[in-house]
Amino acid sequence: MDNVSSTPYVAEPFQVDFNGKLFMSVLGNNLLNTAGFHANDRGFGIATLNQSKYTWVLSRFVIEMNEMPSQYEHYSIETWIEKVFRFFTNRNFAIKGDGGKVYGYAKSIWAMISLDTRKPEDLLVLHGGSIVNYVVPEKECPIDPPGRVKVTDAEPVFTYRSCYSDIDVNGHVNSVKYMEHMINLLPFQLFKEHFIKRFEIAYVAESYIGDVLHFFLHKNSELEYLIDVRKEAENGTFETVCRGFIQLI
Amino acid sequence: MDNVSSTPYVAEPFQVDFNGKLFMSVLGNNLLNTAGFHANDRGFGIATLNQSKYTWVLSRFVIEMNEMPSQYEHYSIETWIEKVFRFFTNRNFAIKGDGGKVYGYAKSIWAMISLDTRKPEDLLVLHGGSIVNYVVPEKECPIDPPGRVKVTDAEPVFTYRSCYSDIDVNGHVNSVKYMEHMINLLPFQLFKEHFIKRFEIAYVAESYIGDVLHFFLHKNSELEYLIDVRKEAENGTFETVCRGFIQLI
Repeated sequence: MDNVSSTPYVAEPFQVDFNGKLFMSVLGNNLLNTAGFHANDRGFGIATLNQSKYTWVLSRFVIEMNEMPSQYEHYSIETWIEKVFRFFTNRNFAIKGDGGKVYGYAKSIWAMISLDTRKPEDLLVLHGGSIVNYVVPEKECPIDPPGRVKVTDAEPVFTYRSCYSDIDVNGHVNSVKYMEHMINLLPFQLFKEHFIKRFEIAYVAESYIGDVLHFFLHKNSELEYLIDVRKEAENGTFETVCRGFIQLI
Repeated sequence: MDNVSSTPYVAEPFQVDFNGKLFMSVLGNNLLNTAGFHANDRGFGIATLNQSKYTWVLSRFVIEMNEMPSQYEHYSIETWIEKVFRFFTNRNFAIKGDGGKVYGYAKSIWAMISLDTRKPEDLLVLHGGSIVNYVVPEKECPIDPPGRVKVTDAEPVFTYRSCYSDIDVNGHVNSVKYMEHMINLLPFQLFKEHFIKRFEIAYVAESYIGDVLHFFLHKNSELEYLIDVRKEAENGTFETVCRGFIQLI
């Protein structure tokens, strides 16, 4: 089995925005789906891991696009593992179109945790360390890796109680739903003439159904935004759930 | 070309709820997608119509399920035209699984309008009335047709400003997004032991980005809800956008 998989998609009518361009959140879901299929086919997917009481946790995710697929356009997502460390693995993606066209790239960092202890497990020991057989260090993914997303001087701009449609099969707010809610904070007029060039997100803690999420926004410039999502604890304190950086061109 | 089309789908991990069951909203999108593919392939899809300055408008939609597909399950959606009247057409759906399993059925009613006048056009005249060649009156769709959804004594329970992720390529709030927002009004604990048997929605008016939508809820019983979605006009009056009926078992 090839260490790089390629999964075909088409930008369906309900997956595109008012410009007829694929929603970043739909792309995000399809990137994660493709990762899931790639891992399952190679014996280290969520389904197999859950039987062994482990699961993957997404820690960092960055997507950088030259262009978004338009309605009805076909695109494929390639994914492969770039590196494996003891407690983290780097998974990369390329989003390609017909005739060698490159829509963009993505990079992600994952940890494997024990479902019992919620602590990271040693990837080089699990399953006999077989994950290292799938590493493709040489394949190109020419975007900057996830940086440090630091949000200061941000203003609270939106409060939201997470609900049924936000929650995935693990009982958490779906990783990509945070992206969708963050994008909704931007002035929508921006999307008439610009698109998201780079979206970076750092996951810090999990949130659950009914959690009250506060969105704090810092505007670097007309086309650059930082967002901190904090959940309200029962004692009135706030805990950061994730942080995002959105750059449009 | 067969008058009944069948399109395959799989319940992907990010398309299922906390029970691992396909979200009703994802099914709704896939039903409408399937309808779009079926119409496009037969020359009366949105893309062709837009060139001729017409478009389809969804008027009524009812989905009735015996069971929802589970994560990773394959299902297919069959669709066909049951009847054509001058100003309306009835399109039916069957959602099927492996080995002849029937997950459920759906029925929809559509009008074709002129993009200039926003008024209905005579379906028996457009394109030489060729749509009648695709009618399959005899194929079974054994669920009650859309009824009259009447919402009285409803309480305002939720206010929402429609945003970027709600809007489709026509610039309206996506038909299925109303379903998603309606389902989010129900106590989520219900979904631990019940699922949506029947979802019926009547579309009355369009809403746009930034519209403030007020959701009015009437609870018939623990498992039966009526919802009226009204948009706020500038003069402070309310206009009904759509009405829904949700029945769980």
